[in-house]
Amino acid sequence: MIVVMEPNATEAQVEKVVKYLEKHGFRININHGDILKVIAAIGDKRILNPQIIAGFDGVSTVKSIQEPYKLASRTAHPEDTIIKFSNGVKIGGKEKPVLMVGPCSVEKDINSLLEIAAAAKEMGCEFIRGGAFKPRTSPYDFQGLEEKGLEFLAEARRQTGLLVVTEVMDTMDIPLVNQYADILQVGARNMQNFKLLKALGHIKKPVMLKRGPAASIKEFLLAAEHIMYNGNHNVILCERGIKGYDSDFTRNTLDIAAVPILRKYSHLPVIVDPSHGTGRRYLIEPMGKAALIAGAHGLMYEIHNDPDNASSDGAQSLDLPTFKEVTKKFNKLIGRIDYDNKNS
Amino acid sequence: MIVVMEPNATEAQVEKVVKYLEKHGFRININHGDILKVIAAIGDKRILNPQIIAGFDGVSTVKSIQEPYKLASRTAHPEDTIIKFSNGVKIGGKEKPVLMVGPCSVEKDINSLLEIAAAAKEMGCEFIRGGAFKPRTSPYDFQGLEEKGLEFLAEARRQTGLLVVTEVMDTMDIPLVNQYADILQVGARNMQNFKLLKALGHIKKPVMLKRGPAASIKEFLLAAEHIMYNGNHNVILCERGIKGYDSDFTRNTLDIAAVPILRKYSHLPVIVDPSHGTGRRYLIEPMGKAALIAGAHGLMYEIHNDPDNASSDGAQSLDLPTFKEVTKKFNKLIGRIDYDNKNS
Amino acid sequence: MIVVMEPNATEAQVEKVVKYLEKHGFRININHGDILKVIAAIGDKRILNPQIIAGFDGVSTVKSIQEPYKLASRTAHPEDTIIKFSNGVKIGGKEKPVLMVGPCSVEKDINSLLEIAAAAKEMGCEFIRGGAFKPRTSPYDFQGLEEKGLEFLAEARRQTGLLVVTEVMDTMDIPLVNQYADILQVGARNMQNFKLLKALGHIKKPVMLKRGPAASIKEFLLAAEHIMYNGNHNVILCERGIKGYDSDFTRNTLDIAAVPILRKYSHLPVIVDPSHGTGRRYLIEPMGKAALIAGAHGLMYEIHNDPDNASSDGAQSLDLPTFKEVTKKFNKLIGRIDYDNKNS
Amino acid sequence: MIVVMEPNATEAQVEKVVKYLEKHGFRININHGDILKVIAAIGDKRILNPQIIAGFDGVSTVKSIQEPYKLASRTAHPEDTIIKFSNGVKIGGKEKPVLMVGPCSVEKDINSLLEIAAAAKEMGCEFIRGGAFKPRTSPYDFQGLEEKGLEFLAEARRQTGLLVVTEVMDTMDIPLVNQYADILQVGARNMQNFKLLKALGHIKKPVMLKRGPAASIKEFLLAAEHIMYNGNHNVILCERGIKGYDSDFTRNTLDIAAVPILRKYSHLPVIVDPSHGTGRRYLIEPMGKAALIAGAHGLMYEIHNDPDNASSDGAQSLDLPTFKEVTKKFNKLIGRIDYDNKNS
Repeated sequence: MIVVMEPNATEAQVEKVVKYLEKHGFRININHGDILKVIAAIGDKRILNPQIIAGFDGVSTVKSIQEPYKLASRTAHPEDTIIKFSNGVKIGGKEKPVLMVGPCSVEKDINSLLEIAAAAKEMGCEFIRGGAFKPRTSPYDFQGLEEKGLEFLAEARRQTGLLVVTEVMDTMDIPLVNQYADILQVGARNMQNFKLLKALGHIKKPVMLKRGPAASIKEFLLAAEHIMYNGNHNVILCERGIKGYDSDFTRNTLDIAAVPILRKYSHLPVIVDPSHGTGRRYLIEPMGKAALIAGAHGLMYEIHNDPDNASSDGAQSLDLPTFKEVTKKFNKLIGRIDYDNKNS
Repeated sequence: MIVVMEPNATEAQVEKVVKYLEKHGFRININHGDILKVIAAIGDKRILNPQIIAGFDGVSTVKSIQEPYKLASRTAHPEDTIIKFSNGVKIGGKEKPVLMVGPCSVEKDINSLLEIAAAAKEMGCEFIRGGAFKPRTSPYDFQGLEEKGLEFLAEARRQTGLLVVTEVMDTMDIPLVNQYADILQVGARNMQNFKLLKALGHIKKPVMLKRGPAASIKEFLLAAEHIMYNGNHNVILCERGIKGYDSDFTRNTLDIAAVPILRKYSHLPVIVDPSHGTGRRYLIEPMGKAALIAGAHGLMYEIHNDPDNASSDGAQSLDLPTFKEVTKKFNKLIGRIDYDNKNS
Repeated sequence: MIVVMEPNATEAQVEKVVKYLEKHGFRININHGDILKVIAAIGDKRILNPQIIAGFDGVSTVKSIQEPYKLASRTAHPEDTIIKFSNGVKIGGKEKPVLMVGPCSVEKDINSLLEIAAAAKEMGCEFIRGGAFKPRTSPYDFQGLEEKGLEFLAEARRQTGLLVVTEVMDTMDIPLVNQYADILQVGARNMQNFKLLKALGHIKKPVMLKRGPAASIKEFLLAAEHIMYNGNHNVILCERGIKGYDSDFTRNTLDIAAVPILRKYSHLPVIVDPSHGTGRRYLIEPMGKAALIAGAHGLMYEIHNDPDNASSDGAQSLDLPTFKEVTKKFNKLIGRIDYDNKNS
Repeated sequence: MIVVMEPNATEAQVEKVVKYLEKHGFRININHGDILKVIAAIGDKRILNPQIIAGFDGVSTVKSIQEPYKLASRTAHPEDTIIKFSNGVKIGGKEKPVLMVGPCSVEKDINSLLEIAAAAKEMGCEFIRGGAFKPRTSPYDFQGLEEKGLEFLAEARRQTGLLVVTEVMDTMDIPLVNQYADILQVGARNMQNFKLLKALGHIKKPVMLKRGPAASIKEFLLAAEHIMYNGNHNVILCERGIKGYDSDFTRNTLDIAAVPILRKYSHLPVIVDPSHGTGRRYLIEPMGKAALIAGAHGLMYEIHNDPDNASSDGAQSLDLPTFKEVTKKFNKLIGRIDYDNKNS
């Protein structure tokens, strides 16, 4: 921690800061400049919040010099985390990127979901996604089928072998969702629901954490740290767009640079969601490709057999024919499956 | 709902939109312009998400013309909501603004809290605030005393008569917090924790909802709508700063204009938190005054008997002598109590 | 400057940084921590851009510890700057806040401007404002009357004694605008038009610099520094709203906290513009009051004798009767003139 | 234009709006709903600013339904604009993406620039870039070599045949820069310097317009419209990152989705700058690839023969060996030149 004192700070004020830091186990080095005094304190920031020092009289600014997360950081864990599923699918490191597709919400008609799942399977996707519990900005929007939706997803898995990724919104629902899901997803607006993160630290299944709509990379990694600190190291990060300056052309600004940044500073796998990340169907293909070439470990995108009648997010879902066309291009780009040959 | 078709939309595409809207009970009026066709559809937006229409072929844009919230809106409820407590305190409308003060976190030493509460009482404040459950960006920061903290707050209430406002972070904790609190607070990062909002709709005590750090006014009112829609109309809105362009001088940008805006478009009371809203102690006074003069129904700010040793947020807390000085000015500005006379 | 090396930085890498800093006249103090090496370098940041050091191998981060502006900073100039005009009007320090009012654009009919100016004079305002050169987002919007508009403003000054504040958009127009204006205004979108700032450093008249719509406080003060560095120390800062999360209820988020922040860290006067800062007529009164009570040295707001037919920004202008009512309240709040007595 | 009246708007208020719109040549269609009255007005928005209507009594909101730009829009100009240079290089449409490389600033030692240009030529790049006029946030940073820098660029062109792209900051400098440059660049902070845009509309050479750090897509296209409206249709758009939520890991958030959006809604060529767009050297490769695969017509990035001693932006420049490695990958991705064969 670097503590910069005000130009006119008194010796007593400097002394007080030093004493306080020493009491908390920091080693101190004071730099007596002509203009400013700078106190460099080496110790465990994690046991002392710099904001406390910032409040001392005579202190101008306090700057952390250590990453505030530890378990999520590549510094402490240089090898990539690779998450393995019972059917052999792997996410992370140098493994082939995965594809997670499905409708925004699981809907009343199970046949719709099964048709979507069959198409996903045909195209070589590994995961079926769909919301059974739906966070909705308005209470007047469709709120999800809850347990019925989870059962539908399990049936789709039984029929196709696809793994299930679905959202959990509340600590109370964890036991239920945990029964059905292969990956439990935390939605963007719950990224800092710390009770939920903590509780997910106590299960064993992988958790996919979506980045909050205005979260910094640091806040994102600290949210992952909450889960890991409580015991579950199987965390997957998901970039899904942040609030930008545009509402005419997109819902969000998809931050592709987050992929190489997260891969450099963390060992956790990184998935990108170009559906929520843009809110526009026609952007799924170019932004999915951009994410993959920038190093994403997988994509999650929305597809629907009848987007015009989807319960939610139709405008950002691909219909099945377009889904196949776009996915063929993704598969080709990343050499996932030799799709064209298989079909010829 | 206004649906603007693409310049080259076909008659069949227009037809399809019209049929779909009519099926959902909308009355239709088509405007055949030279360049653009515009479909005006009057009906209940709340039963049809405009995003669905936006996904139809040939549709350029869809614009809602109705407020998406209903219960929180002043249109539907022209009189101010005034929340009344058993001891006669009232929040909202033309009632005297209230003051809610206390430490960021309730800490191990109950005497600290009692000293703070006594000072708050002396200055005419109505509420003691303090976190027993603490949402923390990092898992390494102090997480709160939980039930013990609630007991301390109740003891402070017993000794001073101050009402208690404290945060609830999770649906599971509602019964416990509900036992102790006079107002249950929802933190900014939980503003869109919809399960929590829904569950708080089923209690009777007032809920204070803090605005999310990147929430629009509309999203804020829709979050309040979730609580109200589920049965609890005693909602207090709290502006606490949004993410801005500056991190050198403040933690957040306090959006004072939200006060007159919320008062114009909603009937719910509006509180302002200049501590979190700025992150700097010296800004509490000018920003608290600004909020009051702009029409806030009250202020919430952090005070501490020993800010340098506070478990959290020392830099944005006032020590007790400064608290008294600043609060004397607030009291004078709003004529809350005739403090100077009382003490002379 | 604090240079934090990567955990695995080599001795040679540390050495290279140290040599480079010493070559540029910095005094060095190395802190050899267990985890990180930290180099504290005291010297003139202004002759060495920290970004250069940030690019060296083995460097993790570089943090400035000195304010990058000097002339605009209160550290170097503890007394308030007070700007004086020939007619005795003063802006800054503890002087009475000033009021700058007028139409967004000067329009074709001079009588309109003269009627507005007369009302402004009657209410005790000190300045008439109005754009002769208009920055417009669209080329299809009204671009201003140019010199004709300046002549109209001069005529308004001749008739009322009000001082003239008007925008200059380009270096080439400085001589012309300088002939007519008492204060030359730099618009928000030109805040970092460095050639314009530099050229305005070579005139003697006061310059009012509006904050850019996404500018940090530091960028704002550095823009002022450009003018001052080139010779003109008569700079007035104007907060006029930043881009926020809301476009339904406001055009901008007025950052009232900028007022006490700028007054603490700079000695320059600070004006607030609640018209552009909100984009809504009904917010001028509450936000103008909030700005004044937070310490603004004056307000600038838009008024018009016929807002419905204004060439620009009618929605954020007050008509004359409302202007008088609102201004009476501002006058009362700040004790500017004993308006009620004068009229009774 | 869609005008939505307040629920309690009077007939007289509706009448007034209608009359006003009719006077300005709009055709009117009123929709008398149960709750709201909606006036659809078809006509030329460009002759009537919707903000004027928004200020009328009884008006709730006004929504434009027409794109506010015309010349920059694909609607009015369905074919891609392709910009051709005398040496046969083309930018836009389905032409091979171009590469524009060079130092941030042209520096005192011409040999440095010539060495960079030779490397650029060797790798098949089409443009040498470098700032002779430098917009700098601080007046204490290097401000550029001005005409001397332009001469150096011309010499680099003479020796290598590379075309020159360089920034113009002020209307007064246009004649000078126009003598030397093949493309005149407008910097991000001048994106809304309307006088500059207008003046660049009167030259014939292509103008590359960088997106402002907080500009929406609409504002960006309207800025291009200013240049085109004044006569110069050779405009190239450049995405260079917007202000985001992160300052620890990047300088800006590069908005890759802007590429397919701009290509869909405009016919103008789109270039991406991953150096300024991220501020980090290691992100140039992944983000450059992402931009290309998303459809960019070219990349602009910073390279330097000695980044540690660059006058500006060293941290985001590639040294020459890394430049060659990265560019080989770009060339391969887009099949620009058969580089590996040529050299073997």
